[in-house]
Amino acid sequence: MKSDLDQLMAKRGLDALIILGGEMPNPHRAYITNGHEAGALVFKKRGEPAVMITNTLEIENARQSGLPVYNYNDFNIHELWAQYPDDADMRTVRSFERYFERLGITGGRIGVYGFGDIGASWEMLKLLSKHFPAMTFVGEREDTLFDEAVTTKDAAEIELLKDVARRTNLVMQAAWDFIAGHRAQDGVVVRADGTPLTIGDVKRFVRLKLLEHGLEDPEGMIFAQGRDGGFPHSQGNDEEPLYLGRAIVFDLFPRDMQSGYYHDMTRTWSIGFATPEVQKAYDEVMTAFNAVMSQIRVGERTKRYQEIVLDVLEEFGHPTGRSDPGSTVGYVHSLGHGLGLQIHERPGFTHLRDRDVVQVGNVFTVEPGVYYPDRGFGIRVEDTVYIDEQGVVHSLTSMHKELVLPLKG
Amino acid sequence: MKSDLDQLMAKRGLDALIILGGEMPNPHRAYITNGHEAGALVFKKRGEPAVMITNTLEIENARQSGLPVYNYNDFNIHELWAQYPDDADMRTVRSFERYFERLGITGGRIGVYGFGDIGASWEMLKLLSKHFPAMTFVGEREDTLFDEAVTTKDAAEIELLKDVARRTNLVMQAAWDFIAGHRAQDGVVVRADGTPLTIGDVKRFVRLKLLEHGLEDPEGMIFAQGRDGGFPHSQGNDEEPLYLGRAIVFDLFPRDMQSGYYHDMTRTWSIGFATPEVQKAYDEVMTAFNAVMSQIRVGERTKRYQEIVLDVLEEFGHPTGRSDPGSTVGYVHSLGHGLGLQIHERPGFTHLRDRDVVQVGNVFTVEPGVYYPDRGFGIRVEDTVYIDEQGVVHSLTSMHKELVLPLKG
Repeated sequence: MKSDLDQLMAKRGLDALIILGGEMPNPHRAYITNGHEAGALVFKKRGEPAVMITNTLEIENARQSGLPVYNYNDFNIHELWAQYPDDADMRTVRSFERYFERLGITGGRIGVYGFGDIGASWEMLKLLSKHFPAMTFVGEREDTLFDEAVTTKDAAEIELLKDVARRTNLVMQAAWDFIAGHRAQDGVVVRADGTPLTIGDVKRFVRLKLLEHGLEDPEGMIFAQGRDGGFPHSQGNDEEPLYLGRAIVFDLFPRDMQSGYYHDMTRTWSIGFATPEVQKAYDEVMTAFNAVMSQIRVGERTKRYQEIVLDVLEEFGHPTGRSDPGSTVGYVHSLGHGLGLQIHERPGFTHLRDRDVVQVGNVFTVEPGVYYPDRGFGIRVEDTVYIDEQGVVHSLTSMHKELVLPLKG
Repeated sequence: MKSDLDQLMAKRGLDALIILGGEMPNPHRAYITNGHEAGALVFKKRGEPAVMITNTLEIENARQSGLPVYNYNDFNIHELWAQYPDDADMRTVRSFERYFERLGITGGRIGVYGFGDIGASWEMLKLLSKHFPAMTFVGEREDTLFDEAVTTKDAAEIELLKDVARRTNLVMQAAWDFIAGHRAQDGVVVRADGTPLTIGDVKRFVRLKLLEHGLEDPEGMIFAQGRDGGFPHSQGNDEEPLYLGRAIVFDLFPRDMQSGYYHDMTRTWSIGFATPEVQKAYDEVMTAFNAVMSQIRVGERTKRYQEIVLDVLEEFGHPTGRSDPGSTVGYVHSLGHGLGLQIHERPGFTHLRDRDVVQVGNVFTVEPGVYYPDRGFGIRVEDTVYIDEQGVVHSLTSMHKELVLPLKG
């Protein structure tokens, strides 16, 4: 968790770290600045608080982080523009000389983090490596310092995650109630005036509800019916009416507008009735889901839970990524993922790797599913769970798991 | 524009380019895939169409780009996981061997673009450089290929930008009408029941209207009153009531949910009446604004327009970034910026650099302002303009520029 950063730096032999990136969202920076990124350049020496450097326009935002903040003006960067108007490299080198000097960074291993322009950063890091030979700039491709830090959440983060979970569940229940308030005609859901209710209508309703609850939907929800639901990431066709008796995969993963934390949940609904084929597959997915939920224990390898799902679903005759690598039908993804300020964080739940263990403070999804586009359906059920300080597993996703959504309109 | 990519590659001596990055929004990738990023790895050989590689989950999304699409399964990447379960570097090297071979990329200069994890990309590019000695991986820090390409928009992009502009202006007019429908009591705007209308209420109304018009607000609008408006990037205090006679800077820069293109506009309003001090500063900013708008010509250096504003505002006695470098009051930013799939693109309008010329197909903002937090106000006025094929300047921002917003409620 966040208080482990110095220890995680020590483990990597890092004397300092820098977080690069421009104005785009930057989860490393959001994490270390408590959500107040302010487009800043961030430095942290091991054992000292992180320091932000930003411009006049962003300085008020930056101060809300609680971290020490510098203005670029404090380093007289405008002099460098006058001195080297056509030499971006020299402006960069001289700027970093001033930052390093002020912050007392004189050499050693400097961890490089952040999100931004990859080609520009590649050239800049080559430049800094050349001009600061006492420093080694070190990136991480996997199991990074931030990956490790965010794998466990502290109490303040858990409170934020619980709150976004609560509101997301209210929105999904509201969507259920909204659809249920309609009636059917000729096998499709219709409004009072007899015109079809479309997937686009439902998504618009859900977006309004998200907004009412202070949530945004940056990645775009999935509301995929029938064959579309058989492609795990198909978002669904807005023009399509809602049909009775077709499985709908509704995967909602909004972000809190204030804190930036996510929730992630999926339900599969079949309006009016479910076909025996869908009901059977749904029950099988739920068997896998319940098998996992009943066995989550602190200290267990996460890949064990993927294996439980593979065992259950293969037993029911579904192809999987283990029995049939490269299959596009059956169970074709991993069981879940951590989440926080990013929608996909550690721990991971694939059978292909054995690196994570369930820990106190984990927040992750459990989301088995099966996908058969040619048979006209997909099914997925997903809760987000967390592991409290006593090691007890809690689902943050309170919404019921009824498959059949009856119309009452 | 987009049809110039091969020529822009030739100018840089690039034999191919790759666009790296993960699942986060990646404007280079969005541009080249016509908005269908699908989390893909993108390769483009000079003179050939770009090619996307993605996973089974995203393949349907990727196909909507109109580009050739490969599945990672086509390269048997899962074999590599079995072969090198604990060696990410070897998996990467062997994967890229297969991609390069299939796409016929054998050597030369390979441009590196895209947005993503900077530290991970730094290590990956060092690895690829070592293992593919016939290839030189080249990033660009400034005036990049994509910067140049997006500086001029093609007809299809202009239509998308006009459409998002039209809807954004409807939303801002609706916000004006919403506020105007209220009444005042004791110097604050109140609802029918006498409770104050807050900035948070206005923002909620605006977000609903954006949603109705298919727009999202990923960066968060600015609705900053009084002293807050004196900090150009302060977003405003949601808890604060709207006061009569205080300048409000309302900067709205939403993105179209479908196409991803932005509009960007700012108005300054003073409810009920304006103080003489604010009215005078507003008139001065409008003088600068009109001076620029009347003089925009194809072929002129963009820095000329920043200089026009500096001349006008300095003449009126305002400190500026030229007269008083590092000042935090007066006119403290540059005049504008191009926009498209990113909120800040080329051309730029700073007096500190002379690199851009007004061109046919440019779409950019014109946004002079003055900022005096200690005097309790800031003022900014911003239109987005484009230059048509005949070189005629059009504002895409049709909303009126009245300062005083009268209450009719």
